[in-house]
Amino acid sequence: MLFDRNSIVDEIKGMLDPERFEHTLGVEAEAIALARAYNESAERASLAALLHDCGRALDRAALRNEARKLRITDPILYMQPQLLHASIGAQIARERFGVEDGEILRAIESHTVGRANMSLLEQIIYLADAIEPARDWPDVQAIRALSKSDLTAALRWAMDESIRYVLEKGWLLHPDTVEARNALIKPEKTELYEIPIS
Amino acid sequence: MLFDRNSIVDEIKGMLDPERFEHTLGVEAEAIALARAYNESAERASLAALLHDCGRALDRAALRNEARKLRITDPILYMQPQLLHASIGAQIARERFGVEDGEILRAIESHTVGRANMSLLEQIIYLADAIEPARDWPDVQAIRALSKSDLTAALRWAMDESIRYVLEKGWLLHPDTVEARNALIKPEKTELYEIPIS
Repeated sequence: MLFDRNSIVDEIKGMLDPERFEHTLGVEAEAIALARAYNESAERASLAALLHDCGRALDRAALRNEARKLRITDPILYMQPQLLHASIGAQIARERFGVEDGEILRAIESHTVGRANMSLLEQIIYLADAIEPARDWPDVQAIRALSKSDLTAALRWAMDESIRYVLEKGWLLHPDTVEARNALIKPEKTELYEIPIS
Repeated sequence: MLFDRNSIVDEIKGMLDPERFEHTLGVEAEAIALARAYNESAERASLAALLHDCGRALDRAALRNEARKLRITDPILYMQPQLLHASIGAQIARERFGVEDGEILRAIESHTVGRANMSLLEQIIYLADAIEPARDWPDVQAIRALSKSDLTAALRWAMDESIRYVLEKGWLLHPDTVEARNALIKPEKTELYEIPIS
């Protein structure tokens, strides 16, 4: 084990409400299973999953305050500050939990909105967050089943559902989510074409 | 009348297949109705609507070829060249039909993908294209009804449906569509917050 899991679990339990803590353990279990299936380190998946929601310990005002300190300027994140828990969580993971592995920090940072060209670990954490055992939304069972054979297809489906959810809620749709989802679509290969240099 | 409608209708009829031509007349009727309801010029709405799909006269190879001449570099437009008919249509409107009104040209250019902060005429053409009488997709009747009392709400609904359609089809979602749709959502006004200067 690369880290003291018991002490991190204890600390996270003290930071989050009981439901969020249970969700965190579910994401960890799912992330470890995906890591084993797709040859990622189960320890890194475990650590990233345990810490992925640590930024949820802060309320909206505190999230905005921390974001200002970090010089985050993306207006969508200030308008929908719950999205900030991902970036702020990565910051807490580094400062309070001493995490130095950049890929783990990025997996925490990108787990809510996503981003283009996510690493395997980022994909695992994003997907595990969407399909952990306590999640119960339309298609989640089908996506869970697909995740065992095709990570990219399951991730794309989960992102499509996340976009539909944002539309349904009337929230702002973050451009990084769209880039993340578009990056999972293979460009058409049957036609060759040249694009002028910009 | 600011333009010779009969001669434009004849020319468009010669350029488009019969179904596309009927659609064009439907968009014109809808655009004129919306222009009257929201105090836009019915003549400009008519001209923009009649020409909005003139780029459909070109096939995919010809669209990409014209796009290269115009130094368009957006890769999504080359990967899904049917989207290029809007920009190329604006070019045809200027060169072949002599349209010089920049707002009419922009309304043709933005009618497919949309863009942030569309003018009233752009909004009318985008929405008319989505809800003209021959259109028959889920919610279209409800959006038609809403368009009579709230243009912004109807437009946002139509854009949400367009995003859902792109997801369903597995196409790339253009960032301009997301920006167009986000721009129609009022930011939360109950909380004041400061964003650092980037």
